[in-house]
Amino acid sequence: MMDARLAAPFAWRVRVYYEDTDLGGVVYYANYLKYLERARSEWLRHLGVSQSALLAEAGLLFAITAVNIRYLRPARFEDELVVSVALERMRRASMSFSQSIRRDTADGELLCTAEVTAACLRAQDMRPAPLPPHLFQE
Amino acid sequence: MMDARLAAPFAWRVRVYYEDTDLGGVVYYANYLKYLERARSEWLRHLGVSQSALLAEAGLLFAITAVNIRYLRPARFEDELVVSVALERMRRASMSFSQSIRRDTADGELLCTAEVTAACLRAQDMRPAPLPPHLFQE
Amino acid sequence: MMDARLAAPFAWRVRVYYEDTDLGGVVYYANYLKYLERARSEWLRHLGVSQSALLAEAGLLFAITAVNIRYLRPARFEDELVVSVALERMRRASMSFSQSIRRDTADGELLCTAEVTAACLRAQDMRPAPLPPHLFQE
Amino acid sequence: MMDARLAAPFAWRVRVYYEDTDLGGVVYYANYLKYLERARSEWLRHLGVSQSALLAEAGLLFAITAVNIRYLRPARFEDELVVSVALERMRRASMSFSQSIRRDTADGELLCTAEVTAACLRAQDMRPAPLPPHLFQE
Repeated sequence: MMDARLAAPFAWRVRVYYEDTDLGGVVYYANYLKYLERARSEWLRHLGVSQSALLAEAGLLFAITAVNIRYLRPARFEDELVVSVALERMRRASMSFSQSIRRDTADGELLCTAEVTAACLRAQDMRPAPLPPHLFQE
Repeated sequence: MMDARLAAPFAWRVRVYYEDTDLGGVVYYANYLKYLERARSEWLRHLGVSQSALLAEAGLLFAITAVNIRYLRPARFEDELVVSVALERMRRASMSFSQSIRRDTADGELLCTAEVTAACLRAQDMRPAPLPPHLFQE
Repeated sequence: MMDARLAAPFAWRVRVYYEDTDLGGVVYYANYLKYLERARSEWLRHLGVSQSALLAEAGLLFAITAVNIRYLRPARFEDELVVSVALERMRRASMSFSQSIRRDTADGELLCTAEVTAACLRAQDMRPAPLPPHLFQE
Repeated sequence: MMDARLAAPFAWRVRVYYEDTDLGGVVYYANYLKYLERARSEWLRHLGVSQSALLAEAGLLFAITAVNIRYLRPARFEDELVVSVALERMRRASMSFSQSIRRDTADGELLCTAEVTAACLRAQDMRPAPLPPHLFQE
């Protein structure tokens, strides 16, 4: 069973800047993946995991192996967004997340949803490696 | 039935530069979506469609509504990649593509596969609009 | 003479994410320009200026005409940075800024310094336009 | 005196894609730095230098220490650009370049000019290192 701390919902705020938009006047489709990752990185930090330390000390990093994303409504310049992270499943060497991006308004308009799978890899040769047993221990 | 010209497979070469990599030493996961789009844009250009003209003259643009991408092996700095585009289905106001990215080596190692759906939108209000009837006519 | 409100120093915090790094393990040189702009955009917001409203209502936007940037030390993954904005000079249709990026540590290690000039343009034809007279009025 | 092979002017073509533009409908200011680097990387490749090999075999990489760029006219979606590279000066551990970006049209409209300094660094600790003596030898 998944640890309640890991299963707890998490959200991270992101502001849309010039750099994120394209000539359509909205956020470029690849850039939502950056927002999704910022939220996952902040989720890890929130749980006490430093990805820098993981790389420097254990030679491990996370790489994304699959993304299934649906774009429902466009995010616009200067919008404030709320990016959610829900860990759906932990396996020996990977984690699956369900994520969403909403506009930070009263009705929290849903802009996109995504399922993301991240694998733990050895940086040296980019081969799968088991998640460190004490990764999420306080 | 789909026009043979539209159904013909298409491929576009992309070089991996510094800007595309991340600290893992490989291409950052969101940047593959840029490569996929460059190839779709070149496919349109190859078919005689100028997206600039479409926007300026008809007020239309394409926006991505869904991406399902699997990352199989990492692309590395200085790799030359071959990005394929196959139009799978045309609907009234959208198109679906099956795409892949291979390393441009003798064995053409498969790095990622993706299904991408693009909707035709009116730029003014980002509402769905029918694909122009003569879009792909020579 | 410049309004004290405009001349007051301003700073904005930025976290370094995966998306910002390159294979050297540090922030890619073009991405510092994104950080500089986030801070300028937040400075405008802090002064009550909405760039979205400026574009929608007055048809005006800011475009950068010159950047002189020196990279002194690399920013690293997961660093928290402090990006400063100091308005150096306001002209009829442009503003010049002096900016810096420091690591948010006790000694505030200086990572880069930059002078940036932004011109006010009419979005329609990208021609210079005078700064709106009441732009910064409360 | 500088080797004629190194001093010879070099140019590289770049296409403007969706990813490069911002809501102003033109190329985002930081992205010109990506174009400048693609051209420098192709200049190195043209001279027989593989940056991947340099990193893997000698543990060396190039990092930018200064950029002075003037944006004269905007590059637009679907433009084809010509990015020039002229090596201005080689020092023990750095190189300075003069670069420009022009639109690839009959009159070759000048869009931006830049001076860029790149230092050779040891990847391990990001400290300056002398350029390898045989770097540019055929």
